Amino acid sequence: MKKVAISIGDLNGIGIELALRCHSQVRKLAEPLYLIDREMLEQAAELLGLEIPEDFVLESPGAEPFTIRPGVVDAAAGSYSFASFKAAVELCTEGHADAVCTLPIHKKAWELAGIPYKGHTDALRDFFGREAIMMLGCPQMYVGLYTEHIPLKEVPEAMNEERLTRFLLDFQRETGAEEIAVLGLNPHAGDHGVLGDEERIIEAAIDNANRIIQNPKSKIQNRPFEGPLVPDTAFTPAMRRRFHYFVAMYHDQGLIPLKALHFDESINVSLNLPILRTSVDHGTAFDIAYKRAELNTKSYLNAVRYIIDRTS
Amino acid sequence: MKKVAISIGDLNGIGIELALRCHSQVRKLAEPLYLIDREMLEQAAELLGLEIPEDFVLESPGAEPFTIRPGVVDAAAGSYSFASFKAAVELCTEGHADAVCTLPIHKKAWELAGIPYKGHTDALRDFFGREAIMMLGCPQMYVGLYTEHIPLKEVPEAMNEERLTRFLLDFQRETGAEEIAVLGLNPHAGDHGVLGDEERIIEAAIDNANRIIQNPKSKIQNRPFEGPLVPDTAFTPAMRRRFHYFVAMYHDQGLIPLKALHFDESINVSLNLPILRTSVDHGTAFDIAYKRAELNTKSYLNAVRYIIDRTS
Repeated sequence: MKKVAISIGDLNGIGIELALRCHSQVRKLAEPLYLIDREMLEQAAELLGLEIPEDFVLESPGAEPFTIRPGVVDAAAGSYSFASFKAAVELCTEGHADAVCTLPIHKKAWELAGIPYKGHTDALRDFFGREAIMMLGCPQMYVGLYTEHIPLKEVPEAMNEERLTRFLLDFQRETGAEEIAVLGLNPHAGDHGVLGDEERIIEAAIDNANRIIQNPKSKIQNRPFEGPLVPDTAFTPAMRRRFHYFVAMYHDQGLIPLKALHFDESINVSLNLPILRTSVDHGTAFDIAYKRAELNTKSYLNAVRYIIDRTS
Repeated sequence: MKKVAISIGDLNGIGIELALRCHSQVRKLAEPLYLIDREMLEQAAELLGLEIPEDFVLESPGAEPFTIRPGVVDAAAGSYSFASFKAAVELCTEGHADAVCTLPIHKKAWELAGIPYKGHTDALRDFFGREAIMMLGCPQMYVGLYTEHIPLKEVPEAMNEERLTRFLLDFQRETGAEEIAVLGLNPHAGDHGVLGDEERIIEAAIDNANRIIQNPKSKIQNRPFEGPLVPDTAFTPAMRRRFHYFVAMYHDQGLIPLKALHFDESINVSLNLPILRTSVDHGTAFDIAYKRAELNTKSYLNAVRYIIDRTS
């Protein structure tokens, strides 16, 4: 059974409740290792009125314990959640776990704690000095983002044949996908250059990537990349029956349809790193933390399932 | 009962079949006036093996008859479809019809016929010398496009406070919508300027438009415009329960979610013109024309329904 290091997220948020409530389901899929100290776990469990399962295995993040304040952005919680994340990654790099699954942190709490990263993905890039690929989705539909957190006006100039070729090859290798829909950038995919010409770059990168992959040494013998597709018809029901992996040129091109169609069940996956990391695709939900509200557990369980599917 | 001038579209495509097959349903909603000559209608009906309904009222487009060639792009069909459209618009401007509903034309056929327009909306802008607003959607969700057929890289520079203010006011007046979701431009709506700052323009335009609309003479007393919304969460199920009208800053921002969610039932509406025009949101479907294939009639019927709802 795969060992999954679970970083506990911001303890003032809903992460720990997800971990406790979903433990029996997660335990059926994997051996979870929770990066939290017993003292903090007992504090959270008491606030939640939940019992701690007997087989809830802990690893210490090596951080200062603190008093949980439900729904509050604070430095102590930020510090603890970063330590938990860092320790989970280390468990993995040292071979004690097969992958990392992260519960939600609060970016402002990291900032207050002086953590120099905007979020998990940013930190992972720095830990490993590698270009992590950000992919979001659920089994029906995964979207890889060629550009992510940059202003829209910087997207066209970020189109680059060499970089996109490498992105496509990395994305294919990491996902194992045999058919990948690659979107155009402009309305109607540029309509033969009338509405923009970045599609020439995309077309060249697709050709390069298909040619390289057809190398006889590769297991994939077909041409996995198709495109550049007209963006506004790339996510119609017929296209989604055909493709389960999409490459979007910018953040909202991929995430608008994903969240319109599969808001609750999506996960965030960091690809192209020495370790595999998945995450829930929602935040700390401070508004409902420790309120015994109904929790959506789909994203968390999908994040664990992805690890099992991909590392088996 | 409202009179709807129906331009017959490219007769080598599926438009005439839609008109014939849906006539009895359309007739219950409105008085359709079909812009086609008897000779052409008989030719099409025979090819389709369909009877011509007795109450199928014709108006001549005043164009040269020609031999229908199913699925072929040709100048004669282009010429005829343009004449049919122009005559439908004239029926309306002369007060003989309440609105125009257009069946699909083929842009290349218009080009071959020397028609100097890229499509219906383009022609309407020229006929009336007015900035038509392009809105697509279905009763669950309509999307107005602030920019349309321009390269993505030109979108950020097209953001303009005065123009967007006017767009919002025109859109509200024409749709009568009381709650309108206005999207941001950048990922996370710019995240306080970190990921782009065009949201300042959008915010200012929303404020202007809300202020102008709160003028005591206006019937709408609330603040109808909300935003700039984070684009990737603007179309989640919860948001779509709250809003039925959205303003997108660019083509794919609005049309990707619309076509992902409501591909078959969407229509295209031209607003802000002296006449109301609706259209199916699909093409001539040359691949299935005159093949007695199963047709999707939802878009056409929604296009007629919109006219009845809005002109009543």
